[in-house]
Amino acid sequence: MQKDQIIRVIDVEGQQVADLVCFARQNPEEYLSSGRSIDYNEKLFLSKGDFLYSNRSNPMLFISRDPVGKHDFLFAPCSQEMFQMTYSATEPHPNCFDNLADALFPYGIRAFQIPTAFNIFMHVAITVTGRVTVQPPLSKAGDYIDLRTEMDLIVAVSACSAGKCNNFSSTPIRVEIYPIIS
Amino acid sequence: MQKDQIIRVIDVEGQQVADLVCFARQNPEEYLSSGRSIDYNEKLFLSKGDFLYSNRSNPMLFISRDPVGKHDFLFAPCSQEMFQMTYSATEPHPNCFDNLADALFPYGIRAFQIPTAFNIFMHVAITVTGRVTVQPPLSKAGDYIDLRTEMDLIVAVSACSAGKCNNFSSTPIRVEIYPIIS
Repeated sequence: MQKDQIIRVIDVEGQQVADLVCFARQNPEEYLSSGRSIDYNEKLFLSKGDFLYSNRSNPMLFISRDPVGKHDFLFAPCSQEMFQMTYSATEPHPNCFDNLADALFPYGIRAFQIPTAFNIFMHVAITVTGRVTVQPPLSKAGDYIDLRTEMDLIVAVSACSAGKCNNFSSTPIRVEIYPIIS
Repeated sequence: MQKDQIIRVIDVEGQQVADLVCFARQNPEEYLSSGRSIDYNEKLFLSKGDFLYSNRSNPMLFISRDPVGKHDFLFAPCSQEMFQMTYSATEPHPNCFDNLADALFPYGIRAFQIPTAFNIFMHVAITVTGRVTVQPPLSKAGDYIDLRTEMDLIVAVSACSAGKCNNFSSTPIRVEIYPIIS
């Protein structure tokens, strides 16, 4: 991606989560940071008008449209180990961590560099004591989010295959790229 | 650190935050993960009886004693850029990110590898809508937390110098290492 483009992430059939990570194209040691984004926005749940920051405190993405308005930035991408621990998987299971690692490998980014993702449409409820529970996404078929690039980026997106996140049915995610229309 | 030791982090004068990060001694590409720890514990605020997990889903630390009971695992370590953005700093300011990076450099760990820290004694209040506010720590002089190592680790700790986290007074943190007393 170049600076000043729009990434539109579309939930084609509804109630589907998409894990998104990104890296600065000029220096992949600069990457999306949940911890900085929560700090600078002073909130856990980011939506329209919020910036997503890098580990070096630079804006990477700006949420320009967000009709759904509920996403997660707390959970690490699902992984084979997660499926074993949480779902008692005994066979290899498709997972966001491996999907992202495979997509990023040709760009010289290694699996250990994958940070906590921006989990688009993932619906996490919290209590004031800090309990977290995963709920079905609020997104319906055709719902989307628009993210404006604030720098040149390498972006990877995975349609999540975990049960609870996606109301126990994994369906496609579509990604479209637009120039900014002035 | 070797497996089965205790790290005791002591707030010497009270109301002082300590940012802690760790890496597997055998493979520093395995590191403390806020995103996995929140997932597996199903809560934001970890305390006695909880495990802290790595990005590869292995337990790294276990909270064996925790009289204070309030810590943060959401915020990235404070950095020079954070002091510029949040406190309008115009001069270099001591910060946890640089402290951790300097301490880890001799172990071959580079600054970009520093994840969201376990922010001991950092008191963050949340609302059900996800607003976060930093409060003065609940720790008094001499309060501590005990963390048991679940694998051989490289551990770094920084006494935080940010204003809001430490009730606007930065004071010493002491770290002691014990064998497990059976």
